[in-house]
Amino acid sequence: MNELRWNPTVKEWISYATHRQDRTFLPPKEYCPLCPTRNEDDFPTEVPRSSYEIVVFENKFPSFVPDAPEPEAGSQLTPAAPGRGVCEVVLYTDDHAATLATADVRRIRNLVEVWADRYEVLGSLDYVDYVFIFENKGEAIGVTLHHPHGQIYGYPFIPPRPQKELEAAREYRERTGGCLHCALLSQEHEDGRRVLTKGEHFTAFVPFYARFPYEAHLYARRCVPSIADLSGEERWDLARVLKRVLAGYDGLFGFSLPYMMAVHQAPTDGGDYKGVAHFHIEFYPPNRTAEKLKYLAGSETGAGVFVMDVKPEDTARELREKIEGTAS
Amino acid sequence: MNELRWNPTVKEWISYATHRQDRTFLPPKEYCPLCPTRNEDDFPTEVPRSSYEIVVFENKFPSFVPDAPEPEAGSQLTPAAPGRGVCEVVLYTDDHAATLATADVRRIRNLVEVWADRYEVLGSLDYVDYVFIFENKGEAIGVTLHHPHGQIYGYPFIPPRPQKELEAAREYRERTGGCLHCALLSQEHEDGRRVLTKGEHFTAFVPFYARFPYEAHLYARRCVPSIADLSGEERWDLARVLKRVLAGYDGLFGFSLPYMMAVHQAPTDGGDYKGVAHFHIEFYPPNRTAEKLKYLAGSETGAGVFVMDVKPEDTARELREKIEGTAS
Repeated sequence: MNELRWNPTVKEWISYATHRQDRTFLPPKEYCPLCPTRNEDDFPTEVPRSSYEIVVFENKFPSFVPDAPEPEAGSQLTPAAPGRGVCEVVLYTDDHAATLATADVRRIRNLVEVWADRYEVLGSLDYVDYVFIFENKGEAIGVTLHHPHGQIYGYPFIPPRPQKELEAAREYRERTGGCLHCALLSQEHEDGRRVLTKGEHFTAFVPFYARFPYEAHLYARRCVPSIADLSGEERWDLARVLKRVLAGYDGLFGFSLPYMMAVHQAPTDGGDYKGVAHFHIEFYPPNRTAEKLKYLAGSETGAGVFVMDVKPEDTARELREKIEGTAS
Repeated sequence: MNELRWNPTVKEWISYATHRQDRTFLPPKEYCPLCPTRNEDDFPTEVPRSSYEIVVFENKFPSFVPDAPEPEAGSQLTPAAPGRGVCEVVLYTDDHAATLATADVRRIRNLVEVWADRYEVLGSLDYVDYVFIFENKGEAIGVTLHHPHGQIYGYPFIPPRPQKELEAAREYRERTGGCLHCALLSQEHEDGRRVLTKGEHFTAFVPFYARFPYEAHLYARRCVPSIADLSGEERWDLARVLKRVLAGYDGLFGFSLPYMMAVHQAPTDGGDYKGVAHFHIEFYPPNRTAEKLKYLAGSETGAGVFVMDVKPEDTARELREKIEGTAS
């Protein structure tokens, strides 16, 4: 079953993919399905090679599939639709114990190239409206496989959160003629207190309105709608700034920090998003301290109101010091 | 610091309450601040009495306060506002080991009365626009105190999720003349597969578009905007149906099931919500199996798309059998 169901009370699609209940769950390291198949006598993994650089393949337990069947159920009030789309897994390295933070800048630069390629390839499919590049890292986020990897979802609709961003940015452009994200970035530059690090082409900061204590946003300084629009130099800089922020994260509590990474950019539904979508990456680590997590509980999940117990200015200072410490 | 900050990219307020970082965290049972102060020599708790029925008091670590100071920061692009509002704690019983599920119907009936009273009292404050009655239960949800209790937030704005519900319902009313929630309820009654239990005045069901495996909604069958509009008989029935659903939850896996409870009803901002707001309670248990939790990860938090690996029809059948089993 790969099916979308419409919630008319909040106007959102929910995705149902029932085979996912049986997906591989935290296997022991020697049975990691994302490691290379080191030799023929070994346990056969998803990658039939003895080593690899970066690998992309279709998720074996996908939330969306290209050939999703027609849904059984649905009504005029609560429509259903096929769960049509693409779900890919991106293996960052064949080293089971590595993370994106420990990868060297050249590898991250290659990963940016892979992301840009998949954005274009998946985005060109007529049934994909939005290419969502993301990573869930760490058991606190619910990962089921530890091998360093990210994911790409090709959604058959523009997801609610990017949709809201695009609507707000379009409204801002109509009212002022400018880009909302450019305006926010220049406010962060002027204020300075929440800026984490500045590369040649990218700036990382804790937003004024962070939902998570150590939330970090990486903004392209040039107003580009998608990762595919980044120049070669910009891609190098993105890799360097990513590496710096991730090293800072791992310096915070002395362990490899769990996080969600979400790439926000232009939809691929054929619309015009120039000056409306502004390519950026958002990181949400769940930790509020080394031991305590930020939970999405009643206020967040039932009402949609995030309550934070730390000031973005304070967490930005702390994280900036870690970034500067690891760089020196 | 009790401050609201505006995220202009998604048009939402984020609440900052920095003293909350130091709140009491899972104290041992003998130091539970929500237990009665059994005798004078004991550790003094929040309730200076030797026993109690139901107690409501102001949260010692509130996300909102009535006298919030003017915020320091903010700009035209990213306004800030005082975090003005009310946060109350509702102790369900003085029995530390009890839960709402194990409370008798008479106690739950009294709790409904308390909720209705607080809805009216907090709703009458000029700086409260929405009274949100909720409960976070279980460590999986991030509770910091185990003593059976719920919470009430008096928000100074209508929170995003209820706001979206109200907008959708208003649009539906303008288009059809009817109530969106009444239409959904009658569709659930007709279909029957997701109905969990029916009282005289309330129906519990797993919605067609559930975001959590064992999500359950309790709808008033009469179209009433708020808990304060329920008749005495309806309040009794709500208590009975609540008790049945909660007993079913605890029967699922053989342990007291964690959940978030969220009450959705009319705002108290002076607007007219008759036929638009329809009083109902939503439960979101995080478990997808006895051992595995549903995490709000990249797709949910970064894109806003919930992915479910079970069918609402299947979880409804399972939960209905448990409810019927505990009733007989």
